[in-house]
Amino acid sequence: MEIGQHISQRYNEELEDIRNKVLQMGGLVESQTEKAIKALLEHDQELAKEVSTSDQKVNQMEVEIDEDCTRVIARRQPTASDLRLVIAVVKVITDLERIGDEAEKIARYSKKLAKNPSVVDTHSELSHMSTLVLSILHDSLDAFARLDADEAVLILGRDTQINKEFDNLSRLLMTYMMEDPRHIKNALRVSWCARSLERIGDHAQNICEYVIYLVKGKDVRHTSLEHIRSKYFPQDNVDIIETISNDQSEV
Amino acid sequence: MEIGQHISQRYNEELEDIRNKVLQMGGLVESQTEKAIKALLEHDQELAKEVSTSDQKVNQMEVEIDEDCTRVIARRQPTASDLRLVIAVVKVITDLERIGDEAEKIARYSKKLAKNPSVVDTHSELSHMSTLVLSILHDSLDAFARLDADEAVLILGRDTQINKEFDNLSRLLMTYMMEDPRHIKNALRVSWCARSLERIGDHAQNICEYVIYLVKGKDVRHTSLEHIRSKYFPQDNVDIIETISNDQSEV
Repeated sequence: MEIGQHISQRYNEELEDIRNKVLQMGGLVESQTEKAIKALLEHDQELAKEVSTSDQKVNQMEVEIDEDCTRVIARRQPTASDLRLVIAVVKVITDLERIGDEAEKIARYSKKLAKNPSVVDTHSELSHMSTLVLSILHDSLDAFARLDADEAVLILGRDTQINKEFDNLSRLLMTYMMEDPRHIKNALRVSWCARSLERIGDHAQNICEYVIYLVKGKDVRHTSLEHIRSKYFPQDNVDIIETISNDQSEV
Repeated sequence: MEIGQHISQRYNEELEDIRNKVLQMGGLVESQTEKAIKALLEHDQELAKEVSTSDQKVNQMEVEIDEDCTRVIARRQPTASDLRLVIAVVKVITDLERIGDEAEKIARYSKKLAKNPSVVDTHSELSHMSTLVLSILHDSLDAFARLDADEAVLILGRDTQINKEFDNLSRLLMTYMMEDPRHIKNALRVSWCARSLERIGDHAQNICEYVIYLVKGKDVRHTSLEHIRSKYFPQDNVDIIETISNDQSEV
């Protein structure tokens, strides 16, 4: 899929400009998430403070991109894939802004955790979960940058692993809480951070759904993964079947 | 502000139709939230189950309204207040869908709480918080239905009270958890429900911001309440100043 095939050079530039701004916003949000996680894992209060203050920039970008989209619709009256791009952008930036909010929350709890050290040790579980979340976020933004629906569909469903990690972490936190009431406060703080991480994963998945909508013109929200793969990505299915067949040495 | 002043009768109908669908979706989400809260407060497992299954209808409406909006943009090329309506709708339904998700989560935890009765008694606090959340949700939808920016701006800031209730409830839950480790599981479930209630309040506030955008043409997200009131609703400020003056018996 290509953008920028219009007779009006200015129109091309406007669409390209919107897309670039979204990528920039995505980059900012990704870096905020990374910093928030680093602050959490390394008890870095300074870094946590930095994340809290940079949320304003993300908010500002959301408002600005929304305005650009409205202006393009009003002036250029986009149709087909151009319109889908604009609508997808309007949706994607809402998710990006909320990822920024979650990163800010993680930073806020990180500050409290750093100030009140305790024996609640969930470093390895949090670190594992964070790696998954960051990789899904990164890949989703990448799929958006390259308008790659194939990549987007591969990312869908990867949050199952995050949810599993979240459940395991919750069980671990529960044991700390039961062991000693003095662990409860910090265990709850870690739990809120984990919930925020999980939500970042959800938002990243939403971004992938918008990429598929943008490229394929199909709204795949609230649709089962099997249905999406078999209907819009039949090639993937062939690959999967082939893999299975190969595994069974039948081919 | 009025909708439906177009020469094309069909276009009027299309916009009116979109607005009606949003109101319908809002009604459904509101009723789901009410049911989820009732299930939570009255330990009603059947009702909780009902909420879990009706989320699909909300999702379906979101997709349908989004399609309608895209179609209207492509065919009618709306500008000015019509375009703002369409953009506001695209945003509002995302919030409505997420309110539906939160209601579903409350219902899910309610089922578990009903199955595992315990002494964790937060009925009065939850009930208090729920009343606030339902009233903000109801009033936001009402402001959208009547395109009433004055009402919308009055609702903004009302979530401060919800946040206060949430903090109090969290403290109470903490005492239960510290008292007896056997309370921890249920206390956490109540805590997740309270967090969902708080989020529903946030989404309702977002809806108000979109109503203000729709009517006044100004994006007021991420803007302080004082700034919004003084800039776009100067009359309110006069009222507030008068009230204060009256209170101080200076007038």
